[in-house]
Amino acid sequence: MTMDEATAQLRKGGMVAIYDGDEREGEADLVFHASFASPERIETLRKDAGGLICLALDKAIGERLGLPFYTDILAASNLPIAKMECKKAAYGDKPAFSIPVNHKGVYTGITDKDRALTIKKIAELASQTLPESEMRERFMREFYSPGHIFLLIGRGIENRHGHTELTLELARRAGMAGTMVLCEMLGPGKALSRNDAEKYADRNGLVFMEGKELWRK
Amino acid sequence: MTMDEATAQLRKGGMVAIYDGDEREGEADLVFHASFASPERIETLRKDAGGLICLALDKAIGERLGLPFYTDILAASNLPIAKMECKKAAYGDKPAFSIPVNHKGVYTGITDKDRALTIKKIAELASQTLPESEMRERFMREFYSPGHIFLLIGRGIENRHGHTELTLELARRAGMAGTMVLCEMLGPGKALSRNDAEKYADRNGLVFMEGKELWRK
Repeated sequence: MTMDEATAQLRKGGMVAIYDGDEREGEADLVFHASFASPERIETLRKDAGGLICLALDKAIGERLGLPFYTDILAASNLPIAKMECKKAAYGDKPAFSIPVNHKGVYTGITDKDRALTIKKIAELASQTLPESEMRERFMREFYSPGHIFLLIGRGIENRHGHTELTLELARRAGMAGTMVLCEMLGPGKALSRNDAEKYADRNGLVFMEGKELWRK
Repeated sequence: MTMDEATAQLRKGGMVAIYDGDEREGEADLVFHASFASPERIETLRKDAGGLICLALDKAIGERLGLPFYTDILAASNLPIAKMECKKAAYGDKPAFSIPVNHKGVYTGITDKDRALTIKKIAELASQTLPESEMRERFMREFYSPGHIFLLIGRGIENRHGHTELTLELARRAGMAGTMVLCEMLGPGKALSRNDAEKYADRNGLVFMEGKELWRK
């Protein structure tokens, strides 16, 4: 039931709140499909959620764009600071971060308008059916790094139960491309509690769901 | 007059709003000294400013910690995406980004408590008078990357007039260490206007200043 409502909301361009689980980050993220990015939506994320605004891409899209994980870049650089690589966060997972990018059409990159543009342009590019070499060429030509949209790469729901994978699994179940925007919901000092995240979802007519609904068979 | 008030406020742990100038980003940042980082202060930045919460370090501290610019890492990696390196943003400057880090004592890294901890621990380390090798060793041992605090390295006010340099120049004039927290003030869709940033400062008893007060001789 929740799943049908969530996928229906996603397809209509709505937001969904996904709580990962008490055993993991104990955090809810506000998520929506990247094709519906708009300045108003970015404003909502920064005001109501408050975390880092990220764009999750599924493994196949990450590969077609030629995206490495951030930790791969750090390791390949061979600089002394490569030793600082995060192997596992405190809740047990490898980080999902790839590179931070801006679309070349932005000004500073951080405004609602600029962040929406960067996200929308990546979603557009990812939806193209181009040969891989052309895809990578366009990606490298149209975006630059460092920027203000933090790209994340999904490792597959069978391998990791982070918000990156949960939100991409929701897109997959909705029959949508693997390009999802997400942002952590914060409360004073700490993550917004499960209870308060659920109340926010109720107040705003959003579906609230738990990670296990997405990773359990 | 403004300068004296601003440096006095900074030393007392207060925030200052710095507008860079119409000819540059046309943006005001909320800034304060890193030694005064607290969960409440991070909450204010994410709610009232809304941009990316960054920690600016002056060149000397960056060197003592062994920090490269992010673009140096990208270039050294020799991966195809190294071609995406941002040479200059739309307003004409090279990016100030180094690496994003978390202190090892955090849980997710993104909460107000976690971000305040990471910032405070870097400010503490930077204030130590240790031999450079030990400094770098401790930095690499106590922090990991990727994380949620975006480190910026100042290029010196004589070379660049970005918020990174402006805010570090303010610290220097206040006789404080070159470790400053900053966050872009955003309005609906775009950067908060100069006028609205000034009103915010007035309402909250903060000094509002312009970049040129800091870079003009």
